[in-house]
Parts: sequence; structure tokens; C-alpha cells
Amino acid sequence: MKDADSKYFSNLTDRERAIFEGGISMGALFHQFTGTPVNLRIAEDLERAIAEAISLQPAIRDVEVHIDRERLMEASGEFGYTSLTGEMLDVTLTVEYGSAVIRVRLEYIEELKYPLMYVHDE
Amino acid sequence: MKDADSKYFSNLTDRERAIFEGGISMGALFHQFTGTPVNLRIAEDLERAIAEAISLQPAIRDVEVHIDRERLMEASGEFGYTSLTGEMLDVTLTVEYGSAVIRVRLEYIEELKYPLMYVHDE
Amino acid sequence: MKDADSKYFSNLTDRERAIFEGGISMGALFHQFTGTPVNLRIAEDLERAIAEAISLQPAIRDVEVHIDRERLMEASGEFGYTSLTGEMLDVTLTVEYGSAVIRVRLEYIEELKYPLMYVHDE
Amino acid sequence: MKDADSKYFSNLTDRERAIFEGGISMGALFHQFTGTPVNLRIAEDLERAIAEAISLQPAIRDVEVHIDRERLMEASGEFGYTSLTGEMLDVTLTVEYGSAVIRVRLEYIEELKYPLMYVHDE
Repeated sequence: MKDADSKYFSNLTDRERAIFEGGISMGALFHQFTGTPVNLRIAEDLERAIAEAISLQPAIRDVEVHIDRERLMEASGEFGYTSLTGEMLDVTLTVEYGSAVIRVRLEYIEELKYPLMYVHDE
Repeated sequence: MKDADSKYFSNLTDRERAIFEGGISMGALFHQFTGTPVNLRIAEDLERAIAEAISLQPAIRDVEVHIDRERLMEASGEFGYTSLTGEMLDVTLTVEYGSAVIRVRLEYIEELKYPLMYVHDE
Repeated sequence: MKDADSKYFSNLTDRERAIFEGGISMGALFHQFTGTPVNLRIAEDLERAIAEAISLQPAIRDVEVHIDRERLMEASGEFGYTSLTGEMLDVTLTVEYGSAVIRVRLEYIEELKYPLMYVHDE
Repeated sequence: MKDADSKYFSNLTDRERAIFEGGISMGALFHQFTGTPVNLRIAEDLERAIAEAISLQPAIRDVEVHIDRERLMEASGEFGYTSLTGEMLDVTLTVEYGSAVIRVRLEYIEELKYPLMYVHDE
């Protein structure tokens, strides 16, 4: 990875690299896992599985995934489950690269009608 | 669900319904979860999370998911993980509807170069 | 494919095989394409791309995809687009295997709060 | 969007914001579209549909998607098509935010066995 870093990433500061990797992993999480069948009973296991998978990506040090139980219940129809949506997700990634540590958050913002991804600084 | 059954599914025998639901769930599994970041350490948890999610679908009584550890290791690159592919998956769904029980299998068939889905009878 | 048919599918009638392939392809469509960024401008091109991709699957003779423009507009937030959901989709697959032709429909049923997949006979 | 910008993104420079949005959109593209059924005949239409969908995301000014026709043919099995993988994709996003313009590239790097995403400066 050292070689790849110097070959492909020498134009980024540590902070820019952390921001880039955090963006990639949040986009990946959203588009990989929305649509997954979920209900109250399995929500906790799904949170953990999502966290474990995204933790494998470069520079991701920690992943906290929360599925909103109220929205989950509201969305569940006749068959006792629903598909995971961006509205139900609240996720925080801790991203560390070199000397930089940032947090990236995914949060559904009602007034934007949009699952917003943004950067927190430590 | 009784009402939905008589309204939408009266043209199917129990066996046809089981075959239909098994097909849907296997197509869902493949297209929902391939692409997920995975390595040896988290493979077992991912198998369980996939099984739990697909178990929620109508008429699915049991789900066995096996990720081929050898193919997983071969595919893992510089970063110590890879994306789950159809070649790595061996899945058996037990589907029960009314008096019918069938099994649906997903298995990568080398000579077809294809992750084949087919029906086992009990 | 002849060999695969006799080896893996001799336990299914033509009608059962059509039902199975239709189920697979509808499950695939739903879980592959929900989540895709979409707005009014690109909806027609996305419909065509989905139809073309699913047409490649075994036994699929025709695919009609309709994205509900009203639901699409309602769901679009601050950024002028949204993610494709099952609620927006109305899809009909024509599936032909041997002497059997069936149609498989995906339609969001309000009273079930569920994107239902079911079989039409010709 | 102005309000969202000042509320959620005041801690990022224009360049950092472009890097963040480029990362998100590339992660989204990879995890949304890998797995899609594809063959030589529909590859061009799929490239265009992917480009259109990802162009909707914030700050994305241009998207070029190329699916490697040789890898596509090699991967195609008995049924005349295959699933789109990261190995087949070569993508360049042009991302513009405020005064910053960057390019983000996805390219499969053989020696890393990894579909690498990295930033080009203009």
C-alpha cells in the first residue's frame, strides 16, 4: 500500500485523503445496503454486519450504524418487514489517515428531504 | 396476507408459488449482497446477516449461506479484502408454501461460468 | 444450455421453469436498481437501461419498466433528484420457456404497503 | 442548498468539498451498478445510464464510464452475458465545487488486484 500511496495519492494531504476515503465508504454503504430486507428482530445484527463490512475499507477506523426503529416499524407492511432506506440510517464513520482524523456522518435531514453526508472535525 | 393470496395468487399451485417465491428471494440475495466488502475475518458474520435478511421474505423457511473461503482469499488484493461475488456463494433456500416444500440452490458452475440457480425437490 | 437444462431442470415443467426464471429476474431487478439516483429528466433512459439489462436473463422475452413520475417528483428533495424505490416501480416481465408463456408483475400495492410481485397468465 | 452548505460544510475548503463529493459518487457508482447484467450489445447503453444517474449527484459536472469489452467477453458464460464487476470499469468523474475542479478516477490496477479510486488534479 505504501507504493500505491506514493504513486496515486501524493497530490492529497492527509486530511484530503481521509475526506476522500470517508466519502467513498459512505457512498458505498448507502448504495450497497439500502434495499436489504429488515425488521425489528434482525435490525441489530444488520447494523453490525454493515459496520463490519465498511470497516474493511481503506482508512476506516470505526463505523457506527443506527437504523431508526420508529421509521422501520412505520415502513413495515403486510409481510412484517421492509427494505432498508436512507431515511432510516444514521451512520458515523471515523476515518484516520496519517495525522488526520475526521468523522463522516450520514443523517436524514427532514427539511432537505435528503440523506445528507457531511464531515465532522474532531 | 390471506386476502392478497386469494386476490393475486389464485392462479398458482402451492408448488408454483414456492418456486416463484424461491426465485424472487434468490435473485434478491444475489443482487443485494454481491459487491459487499468481505474478508476471512468477517465472512461468517456476513453469511449470518445475509441468511437473516433473506429469511424475512415470504415463504422462506430456512437459508444456508456459504462463502467459499478459498475463492475469497484468492480474490483479496492489496488491501486485505475483496467484494463478494457470485462465484464465492453457495446458498440453499428452503421454501414452504401450503403443502409444498422445495429447495432452491445457488451454486457457481465452472463449466457454465455462471452462478446457477435451480430447484431441488425434497 | 440444453445440457444444463436436462441436468439441473428436469424436475420442472415448462410453466414452473418460466415462473422460477420470472421470480429470479424480478428479485434481481428490484435489488439491483432500487437506490439508483433518478429525476424526471433521466427517468426514461433509466427505464430503458433497466429493461435492457433484465432482458439478458434466461427466458426473459420482454421487459416493460415504468417509473411513477408523480412519486418521483414527490420524493425529490433539495438536490433535484432522489433514489429509485420500489414504490415508484411498475414492471411487467414476459417470460417464455418451452411451451409456457407467463407474465410477472411488480406493482406497489398501497393497502399492503408492499411492492408485490405476482404472476399473470396469458 | 446555500443554507445546507453554510450549516454542514463550512469546515471544508472548496477543494476538500470536491474531493468529498467525488468520493461519495464513486463509492455510490461502484456499489450501485456492479452486479448489473451486461453483454456487448447493451454495454454502451449501460455506460450512458450509469453516467446520467451519477451526474445527478451534488457537484458532479461530468461522468465518463467505460466498460472494458475484452474483460466483458471473457467473463461471459453459457448464457451470453455476465454481471458487471469493478475489474471491467474505468470511470472518470469531473467534480466542481466553488473554485475547485478535480477529477476522480476508478481504474482496476492489476498489481494491486483492486479497483482503485484516486484523485487527479486539473
